Amino acid sequence: MAEPEFAPWRARAEASLARVLPDPAASPQRLHAAMRHGVLNGGKRMRPLLVYATGAALGAPDAALDAAATAVELIHCYSLIHDDLPAMDDDALRRGQPTVHVAFDEATAILAGDALQALAFDTLAAAPQPPECRIAMLAELARASGVAGMCGGQALDIDATGNAIALADLERLHSLKTGALLRCAVRLGALAGNANRGQSAQLDRYAEALGLAFQIRDDLLDIEGDAASLGKTAGKDAAQAKATFPALLGVEASRARLAELSAAMRTALEALDADTRALEALARQVVERTH
Amino acid sequence: MAEPEFAPWRARAEASLARVLPDPAASPQRLHAAMRHGVLNGGKRMRPLLVYATGAALGAPDAALDAAATAVELIHCYSLIHDDLPAMDDDALRRGQPTVHVAFDEATAILAGDALQALAFDTLAAAPQPPECRIAMLAELARASGVAGMCGGQALDIDATGNAIALADLERLHSLKTGALLRCAVRLGALAGNANRGQSAQLDRYAEALGLAFQIRDDLLDIEGDAASLGKTAGKDAAQAKATFPALLGVEASRARLAELSAAMRTALEALDADTRALEALARQVVERTH
Repeated sequence: MAEPEFAPWRARAEASLARVLPDPAASPQRLHAAMRHGVLNGGKRMRPLLVYATGAALGAPDAALDAAATAVELIHCYSLIHDDLPAMDDDALRRGQPTVHVAFDEATAILAGDALQALAFDTLAAAPQPPECRIAMLAELARASGVAGMCGGQALDIDATGNAIALADLERLHSLKTGALLRCAVRLGALAGNANRGQSAQLDRYAEALGLAFQIRDDLLDIEGDAASLGKTAGKDAAQAKATFPALLGVEASRARLAELSAAMRTALEALDADTRALEALARQVVERTH
Repeated sequence: MAEPEFAPWRARAEASLARVLPDPAASPQRLHAAMRHGVLNGGKRMRPLLVYATGAALGAPDAALDAAATAVELIHCYSLIHDDLPAMDDDALRRGQPTVHVAFDEATAILAGDALQALAFDTLAAAPQPPECRIAMLAELARASGVAGMCGGQALDIDATGNAIALADLERLHSLKTGALLRCAVRLGALAGNANRGQSAQLDRYAEALGLAFQIRDDLLDIEGDAASLGKTAGKDAAQAKATFPALLGVEASRARLAELSAAMRTALEALDADTRALEALARQVVERTH
């Protein structure tokens, strides 16, 4: 994710996140510090990049996309804080830094996640789009975050850990757990950019394939990677008996599936009547990323 | 809270909560069951009653208030599930039933709370008010739930536990922890009922006093009550060295403060040009409640 073309968008997202996060000098300081620790940690900002790239393809100016890009990343960051908790994945390291419950404490980590979720909706409610469009964006983000999206996928993941799972169920799990928020990022960009029905349908196809590709690549990296380049503990999936694509399909078939998804993304973007160079570059990075 | 006049509103709130909660027969069942366990547990529904009573005072029909009443209660319920977690208050009993992490497990309790917060915003986004009004309601709920409201108050509570605290700080703590969501319930009713500036100001005064009165009564009940009538463990505040009004002011001065707040609520309602009987009855119940 080091392509220079994304640096300005990533910088915009960082600046916007830093701006909406509560003042670390104000009370309650510990909560505010924990929220900043969980968000301003050198994340890849894939979801904000998807918002900016989708909006830009449709001609929306960056300033019209900041709120949506920030809101979806706040949801992602809260979910990582909660996923890392001892009762969930019990991870001590995230992007090379101690996780929030390690750097602070469990109660503060739970609260920081809760407050970040509220901040996401607060931020999106203040977006510059007309009220009707903002309502559609808020409903989209709420649905992608809840039982029909990220939280539902996380619950399926817990149910599946240590149990046999069919490929279709694994795809559904990740379509919700990781895919829903990635799709939401694209949809927020589409809503902010006033996409028409046809454009929305192609963007949905692109986002659907991207979400699954992202997860398969993640699973492959957990096998191939090491802690230094991943910034987190490698080999954890196997150690925790997590259901993964390589475990179910084998490494070679997983790579083949990744190539299919890559082709599906290209097809969707070609059918889109827009400048899709940034979306293509993001698709490439998802498929080829090494950390 | 047994006054028969509130039974129809309570029944509306119960029906609406049951309707928006995900199907317990659908996957992921365990998450859905945990959400229902945490919400459909015989709660007093004080926040929905405040929404209905405020809206009714301004002439809004009940059907215009269901979404707001439901959303604010979903936020309240998620906060109770997270507050009860071992890392927070570590409570095994809530309203006479096992808490969510006891009936299910910690990971599911964390996720159920997270999903309920998302569901609250999803529900409010579908309210029948015009988009502009809905945006104002969504922003109000997000702010009351986050660092400037409930989550901020909970963080102050954790910081204060076991430490000396000044009366002004204790009032700020509760103004955020409990007060913000109670005020939000009144404001959602005011927004849905198209309150004018003067009406909103009086309703804010009423809600401010009600929030503080609610907490002082709660603290007094923890001293005076027993587990059977409270439906939770009595005497926990002292055992956990929680900052409370009776601990700081003494029982008699706490009761006197409660009487002052009761008078402040009456004054605010008298200045309101509306039928405030239901709001008066709620004020009475907050001050006089025995569980």
